Amino acid sequence: MNAIIKESPSLAQELRTALERGEGDLLSELVGAHPAQDIALALGELPRQHWHTLFERLGHERAAEVYAHLPTEHQTELLQNLDHDQASRLIGELSYDDAAAVLDELQDEHAEAILDALPEGDQQILNSLLAYPEESAGRIMTPEFATVRPEWTVAEALDHLREHSEIAETVNTIFAVTPKGQLLGWVRLKELLLSRPTTSVQTTLHSDIVSIEAHEDQEEAARRISHYDLDVLPVVDEWGSILGIITVDDVLDIIRDETTEDFHRMAAVADLPLSLRDASLKMLYRKRIGWLVILVVVNILSGTAITFFEASIEAVVALVFFLPMVIATGGNAGAQASTLMVRALATGDIQASDWFRLGLKEILVATALGLALAASIWLTGTWLGTMQIANAIAIAMFLVVLFGSLFGMTLPFVLTRLKLDPATASAPLITSVVDVVGIVIYFGVATAILQLG
Amino acid sequence: MNAIIKESPSLAQELRTALERGEGDLLSELVGAHPAQDIALALGELPRQHWHTLFERLGHERAAEVYAHLPTEHQTELLQNLDHDQASRLIGELSYDDAAAVLDELQDEHAEAILDALPEGDQQILNSLLAYPEESAGRIMTPEFATVRPEWTVAEALDHLREHSEIAETVNTIFAVTPKGQLLGWVRLKELLLSRPTTSVQTTLHSDIVSIEAHEDQEEAARRISHYDLDVLPVVDEWGSILGIITVDDVLDIIRDETTEDFHRMAAVADLPLSLRDASLKMLYRKRIGWLVILVVVNILSGTAITFFEASIEAVVALVFFLPMVIATGGNAGAQASTLMVRALATGDIQASDWFRLGLKEILVATALGLALAASIWLTGTWLGTMQIANAIAIAMFLVVLFGSLFGMTLPFVLTRLKLDPATASAPLITSVVDVVGIVIYFGVATAILQLG
Repeated sequence: MNAIIKESPSLAQELRTALERGEGDLLSELVGAHPAQDIALALGELPRQHWHTLFERLGHERAAEVYAHLPTEHQTELLQNLDHDQASRLIGELSYDDAAAVLDELQDEHAEAILDALPEGDQQILNSLLAYPEESAGRIMTPEFATVRPEWTVAEALDHLREHSEIAETVNTIFAVTPKGQLLGWVRLKELLLSRPTTSVQTTLHSDIVSIEAHEDQEEAARRISHYDLDVLPVVDEWGSILGIITVDDVLDIIRDETTEDFHRMAAVADLPLSLRDASLKMLYRKRIGWLVILVVVNILSGTAITFFEASIEAVVALVFFLPMVIATGGNAGAQASTLMVRALATGDIQASDWFRLGLKEILVATALGLALAASIWLTGTWLGTMQIANAIAIAMFLVVLFGSLFGMTLPFVLTRLKLDPATASAPLITSVVDVVGIVIYFGVATAILQLG
Repeated sequence: MNAIIKESPSLAQELRTALERGEGDLLSELVGAHPAQDIALALGELPRQHWHTLFERLGHERAAEVYAHLPTEHQTELLQNLDHDQASRLIGELSYDDAAAVLDELQDEHAEAILDALPEGDQQILNSLLAYPEESAGRIMTPEFATVRPEWTVAEALDHLREHSEIAETVNTIFAVTPKGQLLGWVRLKELLLSRPTTSVQTTLHSDIVSIEAHEDQEEAARRISHYDLDVLPVVDEWGSILGIITVDDVLDIIRDETTEDFHRMAAVADLPLSLRDASLKMLYRKRIGWLVILVVVNILSGTAITFFEASIEAVVALVFFLPMVIATGGNAGAQASTLMVRALATGDIQASDWFRLGLKEILVATALGLALAASIWLTGTWLGTMQIANAIAIAMFLVVLFGSLFGMTLPFVLTRLKLDPATASAPLITSVVDVVGIVIYFGVATAILQLG
């Protein structure tokens, strides 16, 4: 994906000017003409003293919309400057899934004080959402949705939706349920609109229902919505009764965050909770030093292996010349293989059970890569050294590329089997391990062929 | 993202049994109860001779739905087994954006023959879509949408939508336009449903419009839909008149594909057009060998550098022991830095113009990382060698980590400036370059401090 270069004049600048000059009308016009997401972004760049004025100018409903799009640390900061009643009013305007996410980030006493000031009904709903495990589908669902009954007529269903559309988050896809909330089918709102009013809802229903259990992982919700092109995914309890819905815009954020996590892990960076823009120096240091130190330990083995083969190095100095080429190429082939597997596992393109079939394929691809690279290094070898040296480094290249590819390909599957994230098979990890094994293979082959040591 | 393990019994197996036993009722039930995406997946695993029977059983509309979700090569294969009339009928059932995508993959004569057999109106629309540049927003928009006029009453608007909802792809968000198609505002369908029928549409409109020009990049469309949590993004011409709409499910696929491309580039794999599952051995070989060979050439420089410092190696053998540790750590720190930048650029978290600020931050983080790693290697050095050696390798470690981090951090921005994909700054490329420079720094520092050579 190419980088995005913002060209528009800064909204933050315009807002700041309006705020400093006290131009209320201009301010209202600006906040009316820009999406809540842009106002939330601009707010972060404004001095703290303007936050309150800007929020007052937004009005209740829009203030909640902007608030919902602020980064977590700004949300918390803003709440801490409000008393419990003001805070409760703001939280009360949020949709339940957004409200639960905000409360989850607060300290327990603070969250409880805010909850206590909310209406009884809201308290119950938020407490039930917060009772689901973190990262579960139940945590991000919204319990505000409208369902219809199959025995109703289309006119009755539309009346019912009209009455409930104010509280329901989306009404593009409507679910028909039994009195106990069991899913019977779904229908698009536009299909209802198009049907004759006296038709029964039953006849308009589609029966291919995709749902998710509340305790399942959010990522699985994201995968289903993405795979089945859904705008709404119903969340059900273990008996199949509908508890809430997850909408496509909720999972876009999850997909983006999960993918970023995978990118970072693949480069041996521990999970950064914030955006790179907002991450502190201390956090960046802490998230990077861990793997660097672990890999230094692996690299000590490389040093040990080289020292072990010192006699060979002194006997045939040309071997040192070709060493970086061979072990780096093995590491690179391994990084390619592991990345292909990690990404295909993450998108659901392949499953853990495909290991054997993909392993066979990788053996063939790696053999082809190894032969091509061995041939080119053999030519360089005969040109710069003896035929014997050329043979030794070519065989070593082939074996190291084969080892690197198979190791890189296998590690993500092993991690999956161990219930770890396959993305832990980072390029730096693969490269470091292939370095160690590659040095042993390289000097082992050279010692045998050149009859050293 | 954790790998997904499929546990359900295979739909392909069930379909196959029903097809082989000729159980038509079971077949109809199976295809009715499963989403089109699952049927499309299962089809790929069925023998070719069953494809036709299965498609006949689906009925026109659902056949088109399943067809739209087949991988490109299966779509082409199926079309080639149909005569032009049959092919045109299938293409005619697809939504325009899906139809344009299929025609785009066919050979020109074949595509033209199918186009010719379509109704005049469809031909015109498809030709206009195919005239937009590849990867542009215009290519993936659907021209089937309904708009309303601000001077209408809500009742008139709803009647209009009801009349046009059969052809319009989505009606969740409605755009109000001038007679010339200029965007005036948007309103949610549920807001219209909730308003009094005699209200004017004007009073229900939101004015914060996000749109995209038809010639802009698809990725930009994906970014806007994702950033603004839109379900529909209007596509406009250079004068701001609406041409079509892009829906959120269209961009989920684009985001997934672009992200996969980034993952592959970051591991020095050229773009794989197919899924890993379906990629042939030859394609996998070709997409991996290119960078491996280029990096071998870079690694030749590493070998040359080492050979150049042979005298130092022979004088102080301990230097070889610490070499892999120092240069690998520099490469790892560089891979971390480049991945953080590439991903943040791709998500829009940072912009190309942030280079200077992030560069300063990286200098500080890299200094902290370099000092910590230098301290640990210094301790190992004094333990295994002399104080002088410890000093030399610690200074080298600090400088190599600093160089690696800054190089890894800078390269994505340089590539962006050159209008290349920042993801070309792959971990293998960074590692290989840092290897070469790292060897020179390492032996340069060692030669100076140990007064060798």
